[in-house]
Amino acid sequence: MAEMEKKLADLKTRLTEIDDLNNANALLYWDQATYMPPGGAEARGRQSATLAKISQEKFIDPEIGKLLDDLRPYAESLPYDSDDASLIRVTRVDYERATKVSPEFVAEFNIHAAQSYQAWTEARPANDFRKVQPLLEKTLDLSRKMADFFPGYEHIADPLIDFADYGMKASSVRSLFAELRAELVPIVKAITAQPPAEDAFLHQHYPEAEQLKFAEEVVRQLGYDFNRGRIDKTHHPFMTKFSLGDVRITTRVKEDFLGETLFSNVHEAGHAMYEQGIDLALEGTPLATGTSAGVHESQSRTWENIVGRSLGFWEFFYPKLVDYFPEQLKGVSLEQFYRAVNKVERSLIRTDADEVTYNLHVMLRFDFELALLEGSLSIRDLPEAWHERFEKDFGLTPPDDRDGVLQDVHWYAGTIGGAFQGYTLGNILSAQFYTAALKAHPQIPAEMKQGQFGALHGWLKENLYKHGRKFNAPEVVERASGSPLTIQPYIQYLKEKYGALYTL
Amino acid sequence: MAEMEKKLADLKTRLTEIDDLNNANALLYWDQATYMPPGGAEARGRQSATLAKISQEKFIDPEIGKLLDDLRPYAESLPYDSDDASLIRVTRVDYERATKVSPEFVAEFNIHAAQSYQAWTEARPANDFRKVQPLLEKTLDLSRKMADFFPGYEHIADPLIDFADYGMKASSVRSLFAELRAELVPIVKAITAQPPAEDAFLHQHYPEAEQLKFAEEVVRQLGYDFNRGRIDKTHHPFMTKFSLGDVRITTRVKEDFLGETLFSNVHEAGHAMYEQGIDLALEGTPLATGTSAGVHESQSRTWENIVGRSLGFWEFFYPKLVDYFPEQLKGVSLEQFYRAVNKVERSLIRTDADEVTYNLHVMLRFDFELALLEGSLSIRDLPEAWHERFEKDFGLTPPDDRDGVLQDVHWYAGTIGGAFQGYTLGNILSAQFYTAALKAHPQIPAEMKQGQFGALHGWLKENLYKHGRKFNAPEVVERASGSPLTIQPYIQYLKEKYGALYTL
Repeated sequence: MAEMEKKLADLKTRLTEIDDLNNANALLYWDQATYMPPGGAEARGRQSATLAKISQEKFIDPEIGKLLDDLRPYAESLPYDSDDASLIRVTRVDYERATKVSPEFVAEFNIHAAQSYQAWTEARPANDFRKVQPLLEKTLDLSRKMADFFPGYEHIADPLIDFADYGMKASSVRSLFAELRAELVPIVKAITAQPPAEDAFLHQHYPEAEQLKFAEEVVRQLGYDFNRGRIDKTHHPFMTKFSLGDVRITTRVKEDFLGETLFSNVHEAGHAMYEQGIDLALEGTPLATGTSAGVHESQSRTWENIVGRSLGFWEFFYPKLVDYFPEQLKGVSLEQFYRAVNKVERSLIRTDADEVTYNLHVMLRFDFELALLEGSLSIRDLPEAWHERFEKDFGLTPPDDRDGVLQDVHWYAGTIGGAFQGYTLGNILSAQFYTAALKAHPQIPAEMKQGQFGALHGWLKENLYKHGRKFNAPEVVERASGSPLTIQPYIQYLKEKYGALYTL
Repeated sequence: MAEMEKKLADLKTRLTEIDDLNNANALLYWDQATYMPPGGAEARGRQSATLAKISQEKFIDPEIGKLLDDLRPYAESLPYDSDDASLIRVTRVDYERATKVSPEFVAEFNIHAAQSYQAWTEARPANDFRKVQPLLEKTLDLSRKMADFFPGYEHIADPLIDFADYGMKASSVRSLFAELRAELVPIVKAITAQPPAEDAFLHQHYPEAEQLKFAEEVVRQLGYDFNRGRIDKTHHPFMTKFSLGDVRITTRVKEDFLGETLFSNVHEAGHAMYEQGIDLALEGTPLATGTSAGVHESQSRTWENIVGRSLGFWEFFYPKLVDYFPEQLKGVSLEQFYRAVNKVERSLIRTDADEVTYNLHVMLRFDFELALLEGSLSIRDLPEAWHERFEKDFGLTPPDDRDGVLQDVHWYAGTIGGAFQGYTLGNILSAQFYTAALKAHPQIPAEMKQGQFGALHGWLKENLYKHGRKFNAPEVVERASGSPLTIQPYIQYLKEKYGALYTL
């Protein structure tokens, strides 16, 4: 076995070098989004492409394939859930995927995505879809080519969905979404037929410094570790990681709205706590990150919605919030505040949507991805199709493309296909994991009212976070919750929560 | 020639990839020194080592050697000062140097330097030289080995001096320093025999925010371009560059002393203006940086001392400074202020030393480097030797090693040898370049009194900055000033300036 250990050490050395390159690249991006002066932009794009290229070259090195082949019997001799067996197994999946795509295609795609993203940053404020249309047509073409590196699919979107949410495909997402839609639409109808929650007091002047301070206090209390992280301001909030010891989040502030900074901080802290909770033994390997888009999103949504928009949470935090903003919140009761941060309404923007209508935004985008890839919808007709579908689903007409088809960055910086289903999978899974945690620790809601989140955080670390990518999404869902993916806990959660606020 | 152009393009592509890696590595360091949370330290060291290793591997690739060989006749067919001829010529010097040192040695040295630096950060505050002594002994050993990769030297320090200050060696620095010393010592003696300048008003409470704002206003006015740079806080100020479009400086604030932030900002802005002034056509190549330690330092010292500590500069800026700090500077005249920021005194710390005594600090270190490398002084005896020599040169005894042999980071993070002479070369050159600029633009002092620095900045850009590393230090000194390195302009500058303040 000494020989196997040597090969394993060789594999780990190579993977850590690749991890170092990827983490340096993540820092290039973080800096660009936070502090970089305008003059740095041009070289930064090139630097990032160089690091990505070297990382890719090093990963698809046939020596890695050979090591993985040689190590296969060794991996199979170890327990399935051992770190080493998992490393060899998961790296093989990544390697097979990476070696199927030609390096020339990866380079072409990255260059196109950078151009396309740049054009989008100008087209969106200018409400000018035609400016990005040819780029988006090329994106669709490249997305199809990407899928075609993985022949044998049932639907052309399948490989793209599988990259983000391992184990899912168009047909399974479609039927899951149909099931969820049948439950959601009556709830949305029932709620929106009733008078909307009063939330004008959230739309007053809330000074930046106090908003940032309160949001920081909240995420610290939830369990985000500032010794291994920090918060900086950006245009679009995100979470990023440079090592398990350095997991950062970014935030933005709207001084005329209280909800933005707080809930986006809690959302990103949810992503970050997942990464901070990964077993340190996995550091420097491909296992040291979250396991899928959907499972990752489940954690941002758990902390943002199930915790951060719960009555118990606000029983603890609302008095503190009032201390920060005594004038603005004068005369606003806990109950009124709770209703306001859970206001349900049909609205234009996915990221601003409430828990109940949010998934309808995702389904619309998911269906368009399939139609575009199938060829039953053209990029040219997309803006019009968006308006029609939006009217049908939301009873609202977007006033322009800016808040329609130009709204989300995803298609302008990545593939068409696989980009959105993870958000709804995350919502579904958040309730499934939370329900399991609650079963193990019935005291969680009582603790929350005391500002204590240790039982929940501990369960999530033990059952989900610490594993990183050792288990794929279906495996970790089954292990942590005791059943495969199911919408029942989520529907039950929504019905209980909104049933107490509205007549359903 | 089409074939040559292809080879040149290939060379440039390879060099740009290396430049990208080095710039990403510089960002890893900048982030570590500014914003990185403590948890990030361990992985960051490894990430930085990985990028350095890949960069070194790519640079010593025999393919680069072959391209340089093939391109030699092409380079010789071009004008000496053309960008392409310079690129090929300078890269060859770098390549020959890099390939002489074994990659194993580079890795060993980098790991040792990181350990040694870490130990120093603990040993200095603890005033514990014995803690770093064995590490420093190894540094000396490795420094000798480094020199021995370049056999045929006259003095073992020569290769190390040549790395930092191309064209210089122990004997030439020694005779230059002897010449300078003979001039300096009588000046120091004369000044320190007279009553010291009154500067108590500099040592009051000066709030951080205003200090930072004033320092920023000053460097902006001098010509530091904030579209291609920014200022952040660190423990030790430095300048760093991620591309010609992104040249940053860092600063620190002592609220009980006015001089620190301002002059260190101007110093670092001087380094940064050199880099910002490099011809954009050199971007992504090894030519896109300053040409030597001494020439680089000449620019920080030009802006810090010749400009920033001149009476003309303060005629413009002092009223503005008084607007920032009306209470603290009440009743302090321009003349008093000017004398205070040019106070000459024998002091313990090199970086805090005035223009006149500064070079004595450098000479002491330079002589010790030679003695250590020669073997006539041991690391064990260094603290005692430092105390003795300091008493001899300064008439002061350092109270401890913290402000003695542990004072500067250089030997704890790099080689012993070549680390210090550049500071004094910089002082000498600052006056030599300034004198040449003044000859071309006699209006410079008059402009300065109006807060205008364009004639000086323009001359420096045209004669020095824009060339980057196209010309080595001796070449650029000759081209810009019309003569080889000489101490005369510096001595004349000191005598005129301090002759007006003291009886010399």
